[in-house]
Amino acid sequence: MAVQFAKRMESLKASEIREILKVTQRPEVISFAGGLPAPECFPVDEMREVAARVLSERGRVALQYSTTEGDPALRRAIAERMRDRLAADVPPEEVLITSGSQQGLDLTGKVFLDEGDAVLCESPTYLGAINALQVYRPRFVEVPTDDDGMLPEELDKRLAAEPRAKLAYVIPDFQNPTGRTWSLARRHAFMEIVSRRKLPVVEDNPYGELRFEGTPLPALKAIDPDGLVVFLGTFSKIFCPGLRIGWLAARRRLLEKYVVVKQGADLHTSTLAQMQIAAYVEAYDLDDNVARIREVYRRRRDAMIRAIEAEFPPGVRFTRPHGGLFLWVELPASLNAREVLARCVAENVAFVPGGSFFPNGGHENTFRLNFSNMPEPRIAEGIARLGRVLRELVGRVEPSGVREAGVAAAG
Amino acid sequence: MAVQFAKRMESLKASEIREILKVTQRPEVISFAGGLPAPECFPVDEMREVAARVLSERGRVALQYSTTEGDPALRRAIAERMRDRLAADVPPEEVLITSGSQQGLDLTGKVFLDEGDAVLCESPTYLGAINALQVYRPRFVEVPTDDDGMLPEELDKRLAAEPRAKLAYVIPDFQNPTGRTWSLARRHAFMEIVSRRKLPVVEDNPYGELRFEGTPLPALKAIDPDGLVVFLGTFSKIFCPGLRIGWLAARRRLLEKYVVVKQGADLHTSTLAQMQIAAYVEAYDLDDNVARIREVYRRRRDAMIRAIEAEFPPGVRFTRPHGGLFLWVELPASLNAREVLARCVAENVAFVPGGSFFPNGGHENTFRLNFSNMPEPRIAEGIARLGRVLRELVGRVEPSGVREAGVAAAG
Repeated sequence: MAVQFAKRMESLKASEIREILKVTQRPEVISFAGGLPAPECFPVDEMREVAARVLSERGRVALQYSTTEGDPALRRAIAERMRDRLAADVPPEEVLITSGSQQGLDLTGKVFLDEGDAVLCESPTYLGAINALQVYRPRFVEVPTDDDGMLPEELDKRLAAEPRAKLAYVIPDFQNPTGRTWSLARRHAFMEIVSRRKLPVVEDNPYGELRFEGTPLPALKAIDPDGLVVFLGTFSKIFCPGLRIGWLAARRRLLEKYVVVKQGADLHTSTLAQMQIAAYVEAYDLDDNVARIREVYRRRRDAMIRAIEAEFPPGVRFTRPHGGLFLWVELPASLNAREVLARCVAENVAFVPGGSFFPNGGHENTFRLNFSNMPEPRIAEGIARLGRVLRELVGRVEPSGVREAGVAAAG
Repeated sequence: MAVQFAKRMESLKASEIREILKVTQRPEVISFAGGLPAPECFPVDEMREVAARVLSERGRVALQYSTTEGDPALRRAIAERMRDRLAADVPPEEVLITSGSQQGLDLTGKVFLDEGDAVLCESPTYLGAINALQVYRPRFVEVPTDDDGMLPEELDKRLAAEPRAKLAYVIPDFQNPTGRTWSLARRHAFMEIVSRRKLPVVEDNPYGELRFEGTPLPALKAIDPDGLVVFLGTFSKIFCPGLRIGWLAARRRLLEKYVVVKQGADLHTSTLAQMQIAAYVEAYDLDDNVARIREVYRRRRDAMIRAIEAEFPPGVRFTRPHGGLFLWVELPASLNAREVLARCVAENVAFVPGGSFFPNGGHENTFRLNFSNMPEPRIAEGIARLGRVLRELVGRVEPSGVREAGVAAAG
């Protein structure tokens, strides 16, 4: 008799991104594979100052167990920020602090999913959400998505055909992996459909504040009269990810379910880390920090798009995101991005093949590029290497300069 | 159509302890209900010093994403400590950092449990483990336990009758809730049985280092030639709980399953918190801190036992733990501890009714007392209040002084 694992373990595997990241830790590799924020934007000195202050003034509280729901001051600060930045009217009691927004995904699976239930998601969607939810053995129903977001008529059609629809999972702002943003009309059309069907929605919004251009659009949570939206937020992209502080905002009858399962999952999130962030937000202007990040990432996005226009061969399409950390590349259908990656790793440049972002497979001619974690000259050099591989594979030797290869995209 | 939750949500409820703790936050209440460490033992100044140092020297690393497995220096320090303190030979690569040892329980459910599988546990067992594992819908098979630990012949009998035994969950040192410690002979007998049946074991060991008297006994992990034991450790009771840093030690083929599910659950545990603890352990002597905690808790245990002997009526039995945070009380079978609690809350004293610690119910004449979180005079006063209620209920008005009411227990 050998040790037996749960059935769910058969379908789980270590994230492909994670395996790629291991390869790309060699310093000579230029990696567009991860989704790491720029560490030079971390407010290290300010964090040192608030850590000292929290420990001096309330050390015994900061090092003790605390409530599952989270630090009251931090919940208040988040509620204010959601009101001011996202036009979402969320009282502090409807905020639950989570160990990164990744935990919000795991808790969502626990609260909602029985084996065989359907999760409706964008196609492609965030790999970390697929990994988190897969533990609960749902079926993923991919809804076709264009540059303006999920296609409402396609969603409606699938919901009509799907008796076990339990949840929609969406990333309306600067989506991971495509960088696309839903238009206002699509947001309203989507909310109209889910409201009619009383379908709970998880709105994953780690990048919403990182807009480089254009007008901010309301979060789904802000246009949700029926209280169907569970909003996942995080400090990882607007502040720093190492503290693993995210949050979840939902109406009370939903939130109380999440509190029960979070209690079983880890009792509560680090008291000290919560108090540090609350103290930072109180003492400093988080908006200044966000503005700095936005400016750095905007320049990096520009550098990446310039390099792509100069280096990639015709027939390669890519998105031009208005914010966030990622853009998305579509190769001619005959190419396989996993094979391209193998060639690229030999040239010391890396990315994530796009197939992993489609829960039901396919689309092997796509890949994701991250532009937040690399200074502009490295971006230019990395894209040049990638361009050489692609030109060779597409069968052209010379770069063809700026042209229609890039599609207008994202918004 | 109303929002539908997963079936597992029907059986989950907020922890009773947590609900009681809410009531007992009034300062006039003397609460023996929680399991909080003594905050006056937290090394606040040292933590402030290491926080500043980590952020000065390696701030950008400390605030960035990191690996799922955990900080290499912390994993090394834990491996050393397990070798030196528990005689368990664990290489650093077989240590996974978790968000408190509570997360180790949740991950265990994910890795091992399908609906209807059997978890064998002590009777009673830790409420937080019941809550964490219940999410995965197992059946709990309670194995009778006496003052020397789980009864081997009872375990063997149940395993023989149970085709779906997936896991044993045990707390051999200063158990929560009883305070009991398994004898050496029982440890060996237990390991012989699980080895014969190749049954994985979760050894939950948050209190093992908090021994006030007697000889330390080897962890099950140290007498596990077949690599069946998953050891859960934590800094919560020997250092401080607010950072939520625990660990899990298991052979590689088990550990890699845990790494995959932890990645989906929260990516990784706080980088900064891990580096803070690693820096503390490097710069200071954790043993000094543990020695201080031991001395404080030993005196509090003594104060509680003295007060119980003086105040509780005959017919009430209790354990005399040699370490840890808890002792266990058994009332005459006719009394219900939930009703006693209601009376006690009116007298501003609280505890946790024991029935919650039996996954299959019953034993309503028991309760758990915590002695770690209260100075001796408050312990004396709280036990006096509790004694008054019990004397009244047991039908005697006068305390009967030191006598045979207390059973010799634990060791």
